[in-house]
Amino acid sequence: MYEFNIELDLPVADVEARLREALLAEQFGIVSDVDVQAIFKAKMGKDIPAYRILGACNPGLADRVLSAEPNAGALLPCNVVVRDAGGGRTVVSVMDPVAVLGLSSSPAAHAVAAEARARLGRVVAKLAG
Amino acid sequence: MYEFNIELDLPVADVEARLREALLAEQFGIVSDVDVQAIFKAKMGKDIPAYRILGACNPGLADRVLSAEPNAGALLPCNVVVRDAGGGRTVVSVMDPVAVLGLSSSPAAHAVAAEARARLGRVVAKLAG
Repeated sequence: MYEFNIELDLPVADVEARLREALLAEQFGIVSDVDVQAIFKAKMGKDIPAYRILGACNPGLADRVLSAEPNAGALLPCNVVVRDAGGGRTVVSVMDPVAVLGLSSSPAAHAVAAEARARLGRVVAKLAG
Repeated sequence: MYEFNIELDLPVADVEARLREALLAEQFGIVSDVDVQAIFKAKMGKDIPAYRILGACNPGLADRVLSAEPNAGALLPCNVVVRDAGGGRTVVSVMDPVAVLGLSSSPAAHAVAAEARARLGRVVAKLAG
């Protein structure tokens, strides 16, 4: 699997606020925010439920990856999907950095990925709690 | 390998302008833009050469992936690194969608990844030409 997920009985806006707070507590800032719903509407006239891809970056971890492997930015930041699952429920899908950075052959990248996964696992656990 | 690369004897700003044009010709818009250099400076006081991670999205391809596998946004958009390699040279590193979406078990995602790779390959070829 390339991601870990949690489904919550809360609307998207509430989940996103809790998610941002939980990410910050693990030193991840949101460095990108792709509103897929808005893009599909604007570019294809297609309506889909709320769907955002947030890019989460812990600068210290990113620095260690890029120092070891300068092109590894092609696998960053860590994507976190927040989407409307219907019925007032919201799904959060977090890219598993161990799976994605595992595509690199750099041991340093693997070590950082393990630490990032531990931190992102705590984020998901906090959302569940 | 998880990415394909090209190094050009041109400054970053010139390469980025040509890259955006070449991506648009393949129906990829830039949906995110992470200025790693600015983030490292602001968050850690660390100076690094110019380093940007652009998120490239072809809405039609993204729609096919997400229709098949709603959580696959955790592997999107396609990241394109543009970075200063020193001496007036610039490296572009494009995430290989076949490698990254290959982490999914969805045949539809694999088919889209192959098409995305063909398009991104033409982008890199155009930069080289």
